[in-house]
Amino acid sequence: MSKSSLIHSFGLSVYYEDTDAEGIVYYANYLKFVERARSEFLRDIGWPPSKIWHEFRDYWVVKNCNIDYRKPAKLEDWLTVHTSIEKLHSASMILRQEVVRGDELLTSLSIRLAYLHENGQIAKIPQAISALMVPYLFAESS
Amino acid sequence: MSKSSLIHSFGLSVYYEDTDAEGIVYYANYLKFVERARSEFLRDIGWPPSKIWHEFRDYWVVKNCNIDYRKPAKLEDWLTVHTSIEKLHSASMILRQEVVRGDELLTSLSIRLAYLHENGQIAKIPQAISALMVPYLFAESS
Amino acid sequence: MSKSSLIHSFGLSVYYEDTDAEGIVYYANYLKFVERARSEFLRDIGWPPSKIWHEFRDYWVVKNCNIDYRKPAKLEDWLTVHTSIEKLHSASMILRQEVVRGDELLTSLSIRLAYLHENGQIAKIPQAISALMVPYLFAESS
Amino acid sequence: MSKSSLIHSFGLSVYYEDTDAEGIVYYANYLKFVERARSEFLRDIGWPPSKIWHEFRDYWVVKNCNIDYRKPAKLEDWLTVHTSIEKLHSASMILRQEVVRGDELLTSLSIRLAYLHENGQIAKIPQAISALMVPYLFAESS
Repeated sequence: MSKSSLIHSFGLSVYYEDTDAEGIVYYANYLKFVERARSEFLRDIGWPPSKIWHEFRDYWVVKNCNIDYRKPAKLEDWLTVHTSIEKLHSASMILRQEVVRGDELLTSLSIRLAYLHENGQIAKIPQAISALMVPYLFAESS
Repeated sequence: MSKSSLIHSFGLSVYYEDTDAEGIVYYANYLKFVERARSEFLRDIGWPPSKIWHEFRDYWVVKNCNIDYRKPAKLEDWLTVHTSIEKLHSASMILRQEVVRGDELLTSLSIRLAYLHENGQIAKIPQAISALMVPYLFAESS
Repeated sequence: MSKSSLIHSFGLSVYYEDTDAEGIVYYANYLKFVERARSEFLRDIGWPPSKIWHEFRDYWVVKNCNIDYRKPAKLEDWLTVHTSIEKLHSASMILRQEVVRGDELLTSLSIRLAYLHENGQIAKIPQAISALMVPYLFAESS
Repeated sequence: MSKSSLIHSFGLSVYYEDTDAEGIVYYANYLKFVERARSEFLRDIGWPPSKIWHEFRDYWVVKNCNIDYRKPAKLEDWLTVHTSIEKLHSASMILRQEVVRGDELLTSLSIRLAYLHENGQIAKIPQAISALMVPYLFAESS
């Protein structure tokens, strides 16, 4: 990831609940890990889902996930989820999330979230929110 | 269980999602299995949660679980959950649920559910519902 | 999906465990649903994971998932997972899986699985297995 | 809990994955929370499961849980799990675990764990482990 933009980091431990009979983290559970990281990211910029709902009656919804599984995580591993923003549109964004164990990249995801109003229609992301997201926007080297 | 009362049976397969790194079903997941069985039991007597809510604005809530873990279930096992009613009170009930694999008893639970109104207060179980539960009431030999 | 190839179908009910506070199925849980369907598909063609391991010391591993979330599933929904094979290579395959509620397509996935030997190396899918998969190979209209 | 013994505390956030369509934490997930707390407790006294297995070929297994559900936890709650030891026997122990939100007791559990050897037989808890558990033994007032 680019050095010139902020990357949000969130750490977590792997417990029995996360593993399966192969002795590794069950493949669906990485989506739980990155959702925890997104929740903390939104809380850290000051806009947890509860506040967005309270102030705007809006909410984020996941529309697409693309997940690459490279190496498995195991019981008692300490993992870090790195989150940055690949694309920030007026009513959606694409997040890049990586699950790492130390230097090793285990899983990488590209996740598209739409910003919806309580009527279920696509809504414009308020400037108060998007302004706080811009620093996490992936700055590609030119 | 007594032969003189009805026992509800519900079958399920054990998948990877249910297991943990010990190679057996993770201990919390038996609560999922018996909740699926309770949902099917309530549907089979004609009172799924959605209908109780729609007609009476009432709902069931679990107040206590006592679980004995005897033998572990494993990946690809076919399990059956047997459900009967230990006690049927005016505003609560105690269910007996057993998870078996063929003849083997794996896990047994005693679960107390309270019947609540939408205001969160304990409510009387309507006669229309309780009448359909009586046949599943555990009939102790005297 | 094409009419000229077999499509495997697997049905399931949505229980409380599958839902979240938005009142809909939690996004990670669709990966559980399609994994149940894959397990049943492999069992139906006669090659459940336990038998592949026992006979060849091989196993399938998910390398990539691409998931489109179109419409949410809800509590008490009856869902069907349709599974067919998009690509069948010598040591991997890409499955197409769709989660539907009646006529409505809720979620569609493209999942790439590698076929590995117990040493963790990519292995050739035995003819005994691949021959039983060919009928499910997606036949594109020309 | 008694003031005269140590109590282990472990904090956690409630995420979407933990909630259900009632808008509260799904009842099985408290067993995940307290298992995380037990894992951290065992790690903190220096005997995580991996080390017990490595040194003694022994492991802990849950034999019984008794759970009282008092008040529900909700999305974005910060919860603390307090763990102490009710009974410490030669080959088993009973833990007391409480899930609290600030001053409110939400869920309380009594969990019996047996100490087993790799052959599946009950084993004596080594002095090296039990000595580090004694300080967490619930000291009843006389």
